[in-house]
Amino acid sequence: MSLKLYELVGTDASRPFSPYCWRTRMALAHKGLTAESLPWRFTEKSEIAPHGSEKVPVLLHDDKPVVDSWTIANYLEDHFPDRPSLFGGEGGRAMARMLNAWGDIAIIGGIFPLIIADIPKNLAEVDAAYFRKSREARFGKPLEEVQASRDTGVIAFRKSLEVMRQTFKTQAYLGGSAPNYADYIVFGGFQWARVVSPFRLLEADDPVYAWREKLLDAFDGMARKSPGFAV
Amino acid sequence: MSLKLYELVGTDASRPFSPYCWRTRMALAHKGLTAESLPWRFTEKSEIAPHGSEKVPVLLHDDKPVVDSWTIANYLEDHFPDRPSLFGGEGGRAMARMLNAWGDIAIIGGIFPLIIADIPKNLAEVDAAYFRKSREARFGKPLEEVQASRDTGVIAFRKSLEVMRQTFKTQAYLGGSAPNYADYIVFGGFQWARVVSPFRLLEADDPVYAWREKLLDAFDGMARKSPGFAV
Repeated sequence: MSLKLYELVGTDASRPFSPYCWRTRMALAHKGLTAESLPWRFTEKSEIAPHGSEKVPVLLHDDKPVVDSWTIANYLEDHFPDRPSLFGGEGGRAMARMLNAWGDIAIIGGIFPLIIADIPKNLAEVDAAYFRKSREARFGKPLEEVQASRDTGVIAFRKSLEVMRQTFKTQAYLGGSAPNYADYIVFGGFQWARVVSPFRLLEADDPVYAWREKLLDAFDGMARKSPGFAV
Repeated sequence: MSLKLYELVGTDASRPFSPYCWRTRMALAHKGLTAESLPWRFTEKSEIAPHGSEKVPVLLHDDKPVVDSWTIANYLEDHFPDRPSLFGGEGGRAMARMLNAWGDIAIIGGIFPLIIADIPKNLAEVDAAYFRKSREARFGKPLEEVQASRDTGVIAFRKSLEVMRQTFKTQAYLGGSAPNYADYIVFGGFQWARVVSPFRLLEADDPVYAWREKLLDAFDGMARKSPGFAV
């Protein structure tokens, strides 16, 4: 069996940073699977077009493409049912759908304006230009202006994590007593920020910080060992 | 076997309105269980004190008290395992914990300032006075002032439901292809508003509106038949 994963990188091919790719990385590790990393950059659309995607992650399972982090998680759960479950049953799979949306909107959407101008520093010139042009069009202003208010923006972001703090009052992980895909959905966003930006998202006494520490240590420290900032 | 449920009501004992009690009502119906309703009012603390609680819902199972909507849901799941599952397995139970926190903060917390001054209209004088005093202390201003900006507040509330709309793109309910406790967590808040306030929370073309309609019709229209405003 062969598994290969297209992962977003910048100038450093050993520094994958997409939050969606990190969801998949953690999901593969949870299943005890190893995928060959295929570094991919923003402007290399033609590399993955044959696999039917414009974005990563793209997983190749014996050369069959599986596209989109949520689809990949479900694919892994269905094709490797004898390995540790990512969802803990069908109820978990269904509820993870909304947690995935929350991860997209509150976590990735919440973090993006806080680190957006740091991202091009990690990219080669051609990719930085692409990123700046496409994202400045989306936000309607220069990346530096989006990021200028991050010292106040991070306070609202931290407040939005209250649902996690409430959860951690009675269980160690979003997935229960051990982490599962619910955790990887959210952790992917934090790992993205850690890889590309020195900006401090969490205070050290935040239960979310303690949770992130545990996930950085998971799978023999896979995420912590990946190059990033000590935040 | 005997099941009794203390439920928050106002002047009309047939009009239970607590969002937490509605979570429990829906959970009981999901399990195919019927509980005798014990109407309870804000100032009747002494009625439930012997059961070890200051708040409702309190479920009495053969006179054994079970306190707090989340605890009750877990109790029902564990004590009636042969009936339809509220969580769809242990993964669902774990993930529902954060959805419960989201329901508390985004839904109940989001709706409260939009309907807060309508609530006392449903209460007897002594309960209305208690409600006003305790909630005005919490918000630091008159209920009417809290509610004064609801026409703009509801826009932010609707925006906060985007995670549900994203979910409904690929599944009918938060719990999957059929509703489960994930749905009742959120629906409880909407039913609370429907019972006490004529304020329009949702626009008719919102997928969340369509979802709410289906839950109003669930269990032979249990929630729709309960007295409320047509919103």
